[in-house]
Amino acid sequence: MNHFADSLIAAIRAKGNALCVGLDPRWDALPRELRLRYGDGSLEGVARAFEEFCAAVINLVAPLVPVIKPQSAFFELCGPPGMTVLQHLLCQARDRGLLTILDSKRNDIASTAVAYADAAFAGLDVDGQIQPVWDADAVTVNPYLGRDAVEPFLQRARRSGRGVFILVRTSNPGAGQFQDLDCGGRPLFQHVAEAVETWTGEHCGVHGFGDVGAVVGATYPAELAMLRRVMPSTFFLLPGFGFQGGIAADTAVAFRDDGLGAVVSSSRGVLFPFQGDDPNWRQAIEKATRDTIATLRAATPMGRLPLPIS
Amino acid sequence: MNHFADSLIAAIRAKGNALCVGLDPRWDALPRELRLRYGDGSLEGVARAFEEFCAAVINLVAPLVPVIKPQSAFFELCGPPGMTVLQHLLCQARDRGLLTILDSKRNDIASTAVAYADAAFAGLDVDGQIQPVWDADAVTVNPYLGRDAVEPFLQRARRSGRGVFILVRTSNPGAGQFQDLDCGGRPLFQHVAEAVETWTGEHCGVHGFGDVGAVVGATYPAELAMLRRVMPSTFFLLPGFGFQGGIAADTAVAFRDDGLGAVVSSSRGVLFPFQGDDPNWRQAIEKATRDTIATLRAATPMGRLPLPIS
Repeated sequence: MNHFADSLIAAIRAKGNALCVGLDPRWDALPRELRLRYGDGSLEGVARAFEEFCAAVINLVAPLVPVIKPQSAFFELCGPPGMTVLQHLLCQARDRGLLTILDSKRNDIASTAVAYADAAFAGLDVDGQIQPVWDADAVTVNPYLGRDAVEPFLQRARRSGRGVFILVRTSNPGAGQFQDLDCGGRPLFQHVAEAVETWTGEHCGVHGFGDVGAVVGATYPAELAMLRRVMPSTFFLLPGFGFQGGIAADTAVAFRDDGLGAVVSSSRGVLFPFQGDDPNWRQAIEKATRDTIATLRAATPMGRLPLPIS
Repeated sequence: MNHFADSLIAAIRAKGNALCVGLDPRWDALPRELRLRYGDGSLEGVARAFEEFCAAVINLVAPLVPVIKPQSAFFELCGPPGMTVLQHLLCQARDRGLLTILDSKRNDIASTAVAYADAAFAGLDVDGQIQPVWDADAVTVNPYLGRDAVEPFLQRARRSGRGVFILVRTSNPGAGQFQDLDCGGRPLFQHVAEAVETWTGEHCGVHGFGDVGAVVGATYPAELAMLRRVMPSTFFLLPGFGFQGGIAADTAVAFRDDGLGAVVSSSRGVLFPFQGDDPNWRQAIEKATRDTIATLRAATPMGRLPLPIS
């Protein structure tokens, strides 16, 4: 049985970096050629444009990075055709050897959480025939409902070497309204972090990391350092690098000295480094990906990972 | 411009009750005739069976109740075909005069929350052509990320007279792990409740209720009474009645004396009151719906609502 953290580390080592490319497609930001080809005003047209664009991105970044992270919301905004495209892209990424984190921040209680977890991992059991749905390597999950609501995700992830990333600390300006509330001398998000460290410690891989990760907004380096101390066995997923204000050096404290322990996700910075009418948008995406990797390697312990032989 | 709480109250008064039928379809629980007709082992087959079953439920309950609440997870578990069915059912329910609460417990930050909110309400703007996606009257939202992540839902709901239900207190056994943490003398969920009351107070309708509701597990009557005091202007959505352990009398304290202020949702109790091979499953669903309404009217202030002329 594979272990999620071990698979993630193998993928990171194979690429010599821990950059995750976030697939957050937006109609208004697509290359003009795609908007002209598919812009018939329908959800289907937008979904087809998302598919062509994201498939190109996957092909461009598959040799370079270990992980992609489709953002479910942007596909849902195209309705059912968008969800079909999400399914195709997850499948394509897997075929290209990428690990996939489905960023859907799902959760609910009891059998409803089971349904979300089955959709993410095992699929639907139709009278003994298992039909995969998203078949992702990991999924993001909201912690507000407590451990028993997270449990179906953990159980199902562990049956097949998958992982779960729990929202611990978000990077939005108003994140502190509830996450910073003082609960017995520690903020709420620290309680969530302590719970995540307990959960991940139940099932550690050979490198000392468990299969429950933490989504941590890289807004304040001091806070990130504290969270690394609270969660020594937990892989961090740092979203929004390159756009939401995360600076490469600020993410350094999220890594272990050996360069492992964190995945840094960039969406807009890598997806949309071009003007809409630039016919060389593919080259721009590849260059932005390489530049982001170089920036992160230069500024963080990620640079201690051996470079792959290319 | 309609106001969500006023529309909800008009619908409740028209039916003489505040029962919400939860659409939580499960393959294993469907009438055998549907499982035989559609059971080809595919996601499409399951989705078609869900559509036929839920469409029948909508037709049966539309004359009786004011609201339905599709649970997004069970449709997502059928993949893209399930999401197509979800869209059809929301449309059908609206056409039958039912209000719809999309129970998807979404949330994220910034433009991602905007995408979820647009999917729920306004739809996608494709170069000026607006394409509806779920077009629901209300959506359930997770509060962990704070007000600015809820803001896109509120803004978009308010543009078109829709509503938002915020998860305040869940009914699962482990809900207290974070929700009960003592933050300055009050549990976390009470802080969330106070925030919801503030948010709903920004935009009250003519009956004194705002357009931000609270999802409150009806597990402990004393807690429900406390939450009613903390949130006097907030409509409550009480899920899981008839299965998760909510007893009719326990929900009484959620209502105002005039019988308004709460919607009680029942899913399995109303959807699956039959054995799989019962050919009279439609009659069983209609009877379970009528019986649930009668039970709630007898045990709560809902009984003070005038009965409609039938």
